[in-house]
Amino acid sequence: MNSTLYQHGTLALLVPGLLKGTITMGELLSHGNTGIGTGEGLDGELVILDGTPYKVGGDGQIVQVPATFTMPFANIHQADYQTLTSLTNSNSAATYQTVSEQVQSPNTFYSVQIKGLFQAVKTRAVNKASRPYPTLVQASQAQSVFQQEQVAGTLVSYYSPEVFHGAAVAGFHSHFLADDLSIGGHVLDFTVEQAAVTVQIFDTLQQHLPVGDIDYMQHDFSADNVAQDISTAEQ
Amino acid sequence: MNSTLYQHGTLALLVPGLLKGTITMGELLSHGNTGIGTGEGLDGELVILDGTPYKVGGDGQIVQVPATFTMPFANIHQADYQTLTSLTNSNSAATYQTVSEQVQSPNTFYSVQIKGLFQAVKTRAVNKASRPYPTLVQASQAQSVFQQEQVAGTLVSYYSPEVFHGAAVAGFHSHFLADDLSIGGHVLDFTVEQAAVTVQIFDTLQQHLPVGDIDYMQHDFSADNVAQDISTAEQ
Repeated sequence: MNSTLYQHGTLALLVPGLLKGTITMGELLSHGNTGIGTGEGLDGELVILDGTPYKVGGDGQIVQVPATFTMPFANIHQADYQTLTSLTNSNSAATYQTVSEQVQSPNTFYSVQIKGLFQAVKTRAVNKASRPYPTLVQASQAQSVFQQEQVAGTLVSYYSPEVFHGAAVAGFHSHFLADDLSIGGHVLDFTVEQAAVTVQIFDTLQQHLPVGDIDYMQHDFSADNVAQDISTAEQ
Repeated sequence: MNSTLYQHGTLALLVPGLLKGTITMGELLSHGNTGIGTGEGLDGELVILDGTPYKVGGDGQIVQVPATFTMPFANIHQADYQTLTSLTNSNSAATYQTVSEQVQSPNTFYSVQIKGLFQAVKTRAVNKASRPYPTLVQASQAQSVFQQEQVAGTLVSYYSPEVFHGAAVAGFHSHFLADDLSIGGHVLDFTVEQAAVTVQIFDTLQQHLPVGDIDYMQHDFSADNVAQDISTAEQ
Protein backbone atom coordinates (compact mmCIF):
# COMPACT_ATOMS: atom_id res chain seq x y z
CA MET A 1 0.00 0.00 0.00
CA ASN A 2 1.45 3.33 -1.11
CA SER A 3 0.17 5.39 1.76
CA THR A 4 3.13 7.58 2.70
CA LEU A 5 3.39 11.27 1.89
CA TYR A 6 6.98 12.50 1.96
CA GLN A 7 7.54 16.15 2.84
CA HIS A 8 10.90 17.90 2.78
CA GLY A 9 11.05 21.11 4.81
CA THR A 10 8.00 22.86 6.24
CA LEU A 11 5.96 25.76 4.96
CA ALA A 12 6.99 27.54 8.19
CA LEU A 13 10.58 27.84 6.98
CA LEU A 14 9.48 29.74 3.87
CA VAL A 15 7.84 32.42 6.03
CA PRO A 16 11.08 34.14 7.19
CA GLY A 17 12.78 33.39 3.86
CA LEU A 18 14.83 30.28 4.66
CA LEU A 19 14.92 29.52 0.95
CA LYS A 20 18.15 27.57 0.52
CA GLY A 21 17.77 24.41 -1.55
CA THR A 22 18.30 21.55 0.92
CA ILE A 23 17.26 18.53 -1.12
CA THR A 24 17.96 17.63 -4.75
CA MET A 25 15.29 16.57 -7.20
CA GLY A 26 17.15 13.28 -7.60
CA GLU A 27 16.81 12.55 -3.87
CA LEU A 28 13.19 13.75 -3.83
CA LEU A 29 12.27 11.44 -6.72
CA SER A 30 13.53 8.47 -4.70
CA HIS A 31 10.42 9.02 -2.52
CA GLY A 32 7.78 9.02 -5.27
CA ASN A 33 6.70 10.06 -8.75
CA THR A 34 4.02 12.72 -8.09
CA GLY A 35 4.38 15.96 -6.18
CA ILE A 36 4.66 19.71 -5.81
CA GLY A 37 7.26 22.11 -4.43
CA THR A 38 9.39 25.17 -5.08
CA GLY A 39 13.03 25.68 -5.98
CA GLU A 40 15.83 27.43 -4.08
CA GLY A 41 14.97 31.09 -3.60
CA LEU A 42 11.32 30.26 -4.44
CA ASP A 43 12.48 29.40 -7.95
CA GLY A 44 9.12 28.73 -9.57
CA GLU A 45 6.30 26.34 -8.82
CA LEU A 46 7.05 22.65 -9.27
CA VAL A 47 4.71 19.96 -10.53
CA ILE A 48 5.94 16.36 -10.68
CA LEU A 49 3.84 13.98 -12.79
CA ASP A 50 4.75 10.36 -13.61
CA GLY A 51 8.26 10.98 -12.32
CA THR A 52 8.90 14.02 -14.54
CA PRO A 53 9.60 17.27 -12.65
CA TYR A 54 8.36 20.46 -14.29
CA LYS A 55 9.06 24.02 -13.15
CA VAL A 56 6.70 26.89 -13.88
CA GLY A 57 8.90 30.00 -13.73
CA GLY A 58 7.94 33.51 -12.77
CA ASP A 59 7.91 34.30 -16.52
CA GLY A 60 5.37 31.54 -17.11
CA GLN A 61 7.85 29.34 -18.98
CA ILE A 62 7.56 25.65 -18.16
CA VAL A 63 10.69 23.53 -18.25
CA GLN A 64 11.86 20.18 -16.91
CA VAL A 65 14.42 20.48 -14.13
CA PRO A 66 17.50 18.27 -13.69
CA ALA A 67 18.24 15.87 -10.83
CA THR A 68 20.63 18.45 -9.39
CA PHE A 69 17.87 21.08 -8.98
CA THR A 70 17.48 21.93 -5.27
CA MET A 71 14.45 22.84 -3.17
CA PRO A 72 13.69 24.22 0.30
CA PHE A 73 10.21 22.63 0.32
CA ALA A 74 8.48 19.83 -1.55
CA ASN A 75 5.85 17.09 -1.25
CA ILE A 76 6.05 13.81 -3.14
CA HIS A 77 4.42 10.40 -3.10
CA GLN A 78 4.15 7.27 -5.23
CA ALA A 79 0.90 7.66 -7.14
CA ASP A 80 -1.77 5.04 -6.43
CA TYR A 81 -4.91 7.13 -6.92
CA GLN A 82 -8.37 5.59 -6.69
CA THR A 83 -11.41 6.88 -8.60
CA LEU A 84 -13.52 9.26 -6.52
CA THR A 85 -15.94 10.94 -8.92
CA SER A 86 -16.19 12.91 -12.14
CA LEU A 87 -17.11 16.58 -12.26
CA THR A 88 -18.84 18.77 -14.83
CA ASN A 89 -19.01 22.58 -14.67
CA SER A 90 -17.69 22.85 -11.12
CA ASN A 91 -15.90 25.87 -9.71
CA SER A 92 -13.02 25.54 -7.28
CA ALA A 93 -15.06 26.05 -4.09
CA ALA A 94 -17.66 23.50 -5.17
CA THR A 95 -14.93 21.09 -6.26
CA TYR A 96 -13.07 21.21 -2.94
CA GLN A 97 -16.37 20.85 -1.08
CA THR A 98 -17.39 17.83 -3.16
CA VAL A 99 -14.00 16.22 -2.59
CA SER A 100 -14.10 16.90 1.18
CA GLU A 101 -17.58 15.46 1.50
CA GLN A 102 -16.81 12.34 -0.49
CA VAL A 103 -13.36 11.60 0.97
CA GLN A 104 -14.59 12.20 4.55
CA SER A 105 -11.05 12.22 5.92
CA PRO A 106 -10.43 15.68 7.42
CA ASN A 107 -7.92 14.31 9.94
CA THR A 108 -5.37 12.69 7.68
CA PHE A 109 -3.27 13.70 4.68
CA TYR A 110 -4.50 12.85 1.20
CA SER A 111 -3.83 13.77 -2.40
CA VAL A 112 -6.38 14.59 -5.07
CA GLN A 113 -5.72 14.56 -8.78
CA ILE A 114 -8.15 16.32 -11.12
CA LYS A 115 -7.47 15.48 -14.75
CA GLY A 116 -9.46 16.69 -17.74
CA LEU A 117 -10.71 19.83 -19.36
CA PHE A 118 -10.83 23.10 -17.40
CA GLN A 119 -13.07 26.02 -18.48
CA ALA A 120 -10.61 28.36 -16.76
CA VAL A 121 -7.44 28.16 -14.71
CA LYS A 122 -5.75 30.96 -12.76
CA THR A 123 -2.26 30.29 -11.38
CA ARG A 124 0.69 32.15 -9.96
CA ALA A 125 4.42 31.60 -10.00
CA VAL A 126 7.20 33.39 -8.20
CA ASN A 127 10.49 34.58 -9.65
CA LYS A 128 13.64 33.19 -8.10
CA ALA A 129 15.00 35.53 -5.46
CA SER A 130 18.65 36.04 -4.54
CA ARG A 131 20.17 36.38 -1.09
CA PRO A 132 19.29 38.06 1.15
CA TYR A 133 16.05 36.16 0.60
CA PRO A 134 12.68 37.90 0.97
CA THR A 135 10.03 36.69 3.36
CA LEU A 136 7.19 34.59 1.99
CA VAL A 137 4.77 37.51 2.08
CA GLN A 138 7.27 39.80 0.30
CA ALA A 139 7.94 37.14 -2.34
CA SER A 140 4.26 36.43 -2.92
CA GLN A 141 3.67 40.13 -3.62
CA ALA A 142 6.16 39.87 -6.49
CA GLN A 143 4.45 36.89 -8.10
CA SER A 144 3.16 36.70 -11.66
CA VAL A 145 -0.43 35.62 -12.27
CA PHE A 146 -1.48 33.59 -15.31
CA GLN A 147 -4.94 32.83 -16.67
CA GLN A 148 -6.19 30.64 -19.47
CA GLU A 149 -9.52 29.30 -20.70
CA GLN A 150 -10.35 25.91 -22.21
CA VAL A 151 -7.23 24.11 -21.10
CA ALA A 152 -6.64 20.38 -20.72
CA GLY A 153 -4.41 19.48 -17.81
CA THR A 154 -3.81 17.99 -14.38
CA LEU A 155 -4.31 19.54 -10.98
CA VAL A 156 -2.35 17.89 -8.14
CA SER A 157 -3.54 18.80 -4.66
CA TYR A 158 -2.48 17.84 -1.14
CA TYR A 159 -4.92 18.07 1.74
CA SER A 160 -3.42 18.54 5.23
CA PRO A 161 -5.28 18.40 8.58
CA GLU A 162 -5.69 21.62 10.56
CA VAL A 163 -3.34 20.45 13.35
CA PHE A 164 -0.44 20.40 10.84
CA HIS A 165 -0.96 24.02 9.70
CA GLY A 166 2.50 25.55 9.77
CA ALA A 167 4.27 22.35 8.81
CA ALA A 168 1.96 22.33 5.78
CA VAL A 169 -0.97 24.44 4.57
CA ALA A 170 -4.11 23.28 6.35
CA GLY A 171 -6.68 22.35 3.72
CA PHE A 172 -5.88 21.99 0.03
CA HIS A 173 -2.60 23.07 -1.60
CA SER A 174 -2.83 22.69 -5.39
CA HIS A 175 -0.53 23.03 -8.39
CA PHE A 176 -1.55 22.74 -12.06
CA LEU A 177 0.09 21.70 -15.29
CA ALA A 178 -1.48 21.99 -18.74
CA ASP A 179 -1.03 18.97 -21.02
CA ASP A 180 0.57 21.22 -23.64
CA LEU A 181 2.67 23.05 -21.00
CA SER A 182 0.97 26.33 -21.94
CA ILE A 183 0.13 27.21 -18.31
CA GLY A 184 0.92 25.94 -14.85
CA GLY A 185 1.79 26.94 -11.30
CA HIS A 186 0.31 27.36 -7.84
CA VAL A 187 -3.47 27.27 -8.29
CA LEU A 188 -5.37 30.42 -7.34
CA ASP A 189 -8.69 29.49 -8.93
CA PHE A 190 -10.19 27.14 -11.50
CA THR A 191 -13.42 25.90 -13.04
CA VAL A 192 -13.67 22.31 -14.19
CA GLU A 193 -15.50 21.73 -17.46
CA GLN A 194 -15.24 17.94 -17.42
CA ALA A 195 -12.70 16.04 -15.35
CA ALA A 196 -12.03 12.82 -13.49
CA VAL A 197 -11.24 13.15 -9.78
CA THR A 198 -9.05 10.54 -8.11
CA VAL A 199 -7.84 10.39 -4.53
CA GLN A 200 -5.09 8.73 -2.50
CA ILE A 201 -5.30 8.64 1.28
CA PHE A 202 -2.09 8.53 3.34
CA ASP A 203 -1.71 7.01 6.79
CA THR A 204 1.83 8.34 7.17
CA LEU A 205 3.52 11.71 6.78
CA GLN A 206 7.27 11.25 6.43
CA GLN A 207 8.40 14.72 7.50
CA HIS A 208 12.04 15.34 6.59
CA LEU A 209 13.76 18.44 7.99
CA PRO A 210 16.90 20.19 6.66
CA VAL A 211 19.05 19.49 9.73
CA GLY A 212 22.22 20.16 7.74
CA ASP A 213 21.23 23.79 7.05
CA ILE A 214 22.61 25.95 9.85
CA ASP A 215 20.37 28.91 8.90
CA TYR A 216 17.30 26.73 9.42
CA MET A 217 18.60 24.99 12.52
CA GLN A 218 19.48 28.22 14.31
CA HIS A 219 16.54 30.36 13.20
CA ASP A 220 14.30 31.78 15.93
CA PHE A 221 10.76 31.27 14.63
CA SER A 222 9.17 32.90 17.66
CA ALA A 223 9.04 36.32 15.95
CA ASP A 224 7.54 34.93 12.74
CA ASN A 225 3.82 35.03 12.16
CA VAL A 226 3.90 31.54 10.68
CA ALA A 227 0.26 30.48 10.71
CA GLN A 228 -1.14 33.74 9.39
CA ASP A 229 1.55 34.39 6.79
CA ILE A 230 1.10 30.90 5.31
CA SER A 231 -2.64 31.50 5.06
CA THR A 232 -2.03 34.88 3.40
CA ALA A 233 0.57 33.71 0.91
CA GLU A 234 -0.58 30.18 0.06
CA GLN A 235 -4.34 30.35 -0.26
CA MET B 1 22.10 6.70 10.66
CA ASN B 2 19.15 6.11 12.98
CA SER B 3 17.58 9.50 12.63
CA THR B 4 13.87 8.76 12.35
CA LEU B 5 11.35 9.37 15.12
CA TYR B 6 8.20 7.31 14.67
CA GLN B 7 4.99 8.75 16.11
CA HIS B 8 1.64 6.97 16.15
CA GLY B 9 -1.35 9.26 16.64
CA THR B 10 -1.12 12.89 17.64
CA LEU B 11 -1.46 14.59 21.00
CA ALA B 12 -4.39 16.47 19.46
CA LEU B 13 -6.50 13.30 19.37
CA LEU B 14 -6.15 12.83 23.12
CA VAL B 15 -7.70 16.26 23.73
CA PRO B 16 -11.33 15.32 22.91
CA GLY B 17 -10.80 11.80 24.31
CA LEU B 18 -10.18 9.74 21.15
CA LEU B 19 -8.52 7.11 23.33
CA LYS B 20 -9.05 3.89 21.40
CA GLY B 21 -5.92 1.76 21.06
CA THR B 22 -5.03 1.92 17.36
CA ILE B 23 -1.58 0.32 17.30
CA THR B 24 -0.24 -2.74 19.12
CA MET B 25 2.99 -2.75 21.10
CA GLY B 26 4.25 -5.46 18.77
CA GLU B 27 3.80 -3.18 15.76
CA LEU B 28 5.22 -0.18 17.61
CA LEU B 29 8.37 -2.13 18.57
CA SER B 30 9.00 -2.82 14.87
CA HIS B 31 9.90 0.91 14.65
CA GLY B 32 12.44 1.09 17.47
CA ASN B 33 13.50 0.07 20.96
CA THR B 34 13.12 3.29 22.99
CA GLY B 35 10.00 5.34 23.51
CA ILE B 36 7.07 6.71 25.45
CA GLY B 37 3.29 6.58 25.11
CA THR B 38 -0.01 5.77 26.77
CA GLY B 39 -2.39 2.81 26.57
CA GLU B 40 -5.98 2.63 25.36
CA GLY B 41 -8.18 4.83 27.54
CA LEU B 42 -5.03 6.60 28.83
CA ASP B 43 -4.02 3.31 30.43
CA GLY B 44 -0.90 4.42 32.26
CA GLU B 45 2.33 6.04 31.16
CA LEU B 46 4.60 3.93 28.97
CA VAL B 47 8.37 3.85 28.98
CA ILE B 48 10.17 1.62 26.47
CA LEU B 49 13.84 0.98 27.19
CA ASP B 50 16.09 -1.45 25.27
CA GLY B 51 13.01 -2.90 23.59
CA THR B 52 11.19 -3.66 26.85
CA PRO B 53 7.85 -1.84 27.27
CA TYR B 54 6.91 -0.85 30.82
CA LYS B 55 3.59 0.61 31.94
CA VAL B 56 3.30 2.84 35.01
CA GLY B 57 -0.32 2.47 36.10
CA GLY B 58 -2.50 5.00 37.90
CA ASP B 59 -1.84 2.98 41.07
CA GLY B 60 1.90 3.40 40.64
CA GLN B 61 2.47 -0.26 39.81
CA ILE B 62 5.00 -0.86 37.06
CA VAL B 63 4.54 -3.87 34.81
CA GLN B 64 5.72 -5.04 31.41
CA VAL B 65 3.01 -5.01 28.76
CA PRO B 66 2.47 -7.71 26.10
CA ALA B 67 2.78 -7.31 22.33
CA THR B 68 -1.03 -7.18 22.12
CA PHE B 69 -1.24 -4.05 24.33
CA THR B 70 -2.81 -1.21 22.31
CA MET B 71 -2.19 2.54 22.34
CA PRO B 72 -3.78 5.71 20.93
CA PHE B 73 -0.47 7.63 21.04
CA ALA B 74 3.21 6.70 21.23
CA ASN B 75 6.69 7.78 20.17
CA ILE B 76 9.48 5.30 19.44
CA HIS B 77 12.91 5.28 17.83
CA GLN B 78 15.97 3.04 17.53
CA ALA B 79 18.36 4.29 20.19
CA ASP B 80 21.66 5.68 18.92
CA TYR B 81 22.35 8.32 21.56
CA GLN B 82 25.54 10.37 21.57
CA THR B 83 27.17 11.78 24.70
CA LEU B 84 26.15 15.39 25.36
CA THR B 85 27.28 16.21 28.90
CA SER B 86 27.09 15.11 32.51
CA LEU B 87 25.12 16.97 35.15
CA THR B 88 25.48 17.37 38.91
CA ASN B 89 22.85 18.93 41.16
CA SER B 90 20.70 20.28 38.38
CA ASN B 91 16.98 20.93 38.65
CA SER B 92 14.62 20.30 35.76
CA ALA B 93 14.52 23.87 34.43
CA ALA B 94 18.31 24.15 34.48
CA THR B 95 18.65 20.71 32.91
CA TYR B 96 16.31 21.49 30.01
CA GLN B 97 18.05 24.83 29.49
CA THR B 98 21.49 23.21 29.44
CA VAL B 99 20.30 20.61 26.97
CA SER B 100 18.66 23.23 24.71
CA GLU B 101 21.80 25.39 24.71
CA GLN B 102 24.15 22.51 23.98
CA VAL B 103 22.02 20.73 21.37
CA GLN B 104 21.22 24.02 19.55
CA SER B 105 18.52 22.38 17.44
CA PRO B 106 15.23 24.08 18.29
CA ASN B 107 13.79 23.40 14.84
CA THR B 108 14.03 19.64 14.64
CA PHE B 109 12.97 16.66 16.75
CA TYR B 110 15.46 15.07 19.12
CA SER B 111 15.52 12.70 22.06
CA VAL B 112 17.42 13.15 25.30
CA GLN B 113 18.22 10.37 27.73
CA ILE B 114 19.27 11.26 31.28
CA LYS B 115 20.59 8.24 33.15
CA GLY B 116 21.95 8.23 36.68
CA LEU B 117 21.05 9.23 40.21
CA PHE B 118 18.21 11.67 40.84
CA GLN B 119 17.88 13.61 44.13
CA ALA B 120 14.15 13.76 43.55
CA VAL B 121 11.63 12.72 40.93
CA LYS B 122 7.96 13.72 40.72
CA THR B 123 5.79 11.88 38.19
CA ARG B 124 2.16 11.34 37.36
CA ALA B 125 0.19 8.50 35.87
CA VAL B 126 -3.40 8.29 34.75
CA ASN B 127 -5.87 5.48 35.48
CA LYS B 128 -7.38 3.74 32.49
CA ALA B 129 -10.75 5.23 31.59
CA SER B 130 -13.70 3.40 30.06
CA ARG B 131 -16.03 4.59 27.31
CA PRO B 132 -17.35 7.20 27.02
CA TYR B 133 -13.79 8.45 27.30
CA PRO B 134 -12.99 11.66 29.19
CA THR B 135 -11.24 14.59 27.59
CA LEU B 136 -7.52 15.00 28.20
CA VAL B 137 -8.05 17.79 30.70
CA GLN B 138 -10.67 15.74 32.59
CA ALA B 139 -8.38 12.71 32.63
CA SER B 140 -5.37 14.70 33.77
CA GLN B 141 -7.37 15.98 36.75
CA ALA B 142 -7.86 12.36 37.87
CA GLN B 143 -4.16 11.52 37.73
CA SER B 144 -2.07 10.16 40.60
CA VAL B 145 1.16 11.93 41.53
CA PHE B 146 4.23 10.07 42.80
CA GLN B 147 7.38 11.39 44.42
CA GLN B 148 10.61 9.78 45.47
CA GLU B 149 14.05 10.90 46.61
CA GLN B 150 17.44 9.37 45.86
CA VAL B 151 16.39 7.22 42.97
CA ALA B 152 18.51 5.73 40.20
CA GLY B 153 16.80 5.61 36.85
CA THR B 154 16.39 6.78 33.28
CA LEU B 155 14.52 9.78 31.93
CA VAL B 156 13.54 9.57 28.25
CA SER B 157 12.53 12.88 26.69
CA TYR B 158 11.42 13.96 23.22
CA TYR B 159 11.88 17.55 22.08
CA SER B 160 9.47 18.80 19.39
CA PRO B 161 9.67 22.13 17.49
CA GLU B 162 7.02 24.76 18.17
CA VAL B 163 5.47 24.42 14.70
CA PHE B 164 4.48 20.82 15.55
CA HIS B 165 2.63 21.75 18.76
CA GLY B 166 -0.66 19.90 18.53
CA ALA B 167 0.78 16.94 16.67
CA ALA B 168 3.22 16.68 19.59
CA VAL B 169 3.99 18.73 22.71
CA ALA B 170 6.22 21.65 21.72
CA GLY B 171 9.33 21.50 23.87
CA PHE B 172 10.26 18.54 26.04
CA HIS B 173 7.94 15.60 26.83
CA SER B 174 9.57 13.31 29.38
CA HIS B 175 8.84 9.95 31.00
CA PHE B 176 10.87 8.31 33.80
CA LEU B 177 11.59 4.78 34.97
CA ALA B 178 13.48 3.86 38.13
CA ASP B 179 16.06 1.09 37.76
CA ASP B 180 14.29 -0.88 40.52
CA LEU B 181 10.84 -0.07 39.07
CA SER B 182 9.89 1.70 42.32
CA ILE B 183 8.64 4.82 40.52
CA GLY B 184 7.94 5.98 36.98
CA GLY B 185 5.55 7.89 34.76
CA HIS B 186 5.08 11.21 33.01
CA VAL B 187 7.69 13.58 34.49
CA LEU B 188 6.36 16.63 36.36
CA ASP B 189 9.64 17.62 38.01
CA PHE B 190 13.06 16.28 38.89
CA THR B 191 16.46 17.16 40.25
CA VAL B 192 19.53 15.36 38.96
CA GLU B 193 22.15 14.43 41.56
CA GLN B 194 24.63 12.94 39.08
CA ALA B 195 23.69 11.76 35.62
CA ALA B 196 24.94 11.29 32.08
CA VAL B 197 23.03 13.15 29.37
CA THR B 198 22.93 11.72 25.84
CA VAL B 199 21.14 13.02 22.79
CA GLN B 200 19.91 11.75 19.43
CA ILE B 201 18.90 14.22 16.72
CA PHE B 202 16.28 13.17 14.15
CA ASP B 203 16.01 14.49 10.61
CA THR B 204 12.71 12.70 10.02
CA LEU B 205 9.39 12.46 11.83
CA GLN B 206 7.46 9.44 10.59
CA GLN B 207 3.96 10.53 11.59
CA HIS B 208 1.52 7.62 11.47
CA LEU B 209 -2.20 8.37 11.82
CA PRO B 210 -5.00 5.96 12.84
CA VAL B 211 -6.85 6.09 9.51
CA GLY B 212 -8.71 2.86 10.35
CA ASP B 213 -10.41 4.43 13.39
CA ILE B 214 -13.71 5.94 12.26
CA ASP B 215 -14.07 7.97 15.49
CA TYR B 216 -10.75 9.68 14.75
CA MET B 217 -11.35 10.06 11.04
CA GLN B 218 -14.76 11.69 11.45
CA HIS B 219 -14.06 13.82 14.52
CA ASP B 220 -14.51 17.59 14.16
CA PHE B 221 -11.49 19.10 15.91
CA SER B 222 -12.60 22.68 15.25
CA ALA B 223 -14.38 22.91 18.61
CA ASP B 224 -11.43 21.48 20.56
CA ASN B 225 -8.95 23.78 22.23
CA VAL B 226 -6.06 21.59 21.12
CA ALA B 227 -3.02 23.81 21.61
CA GLN B 228 -4.02 25.13 25.02
CA ASP B 229 -5.33 21.85 26.41
CA ILE B 230 -2.13 20.03 25.49
CA SER B 231 -0.11 22.72 27.22
CA THR B 232 -2.34 22.46 30.30
CA ALA B 233 -2.34 18.68 30.53
CA GLU B 234 1.13 17.71 29.34
CA GLN B 235 3.48 20.23 30.87
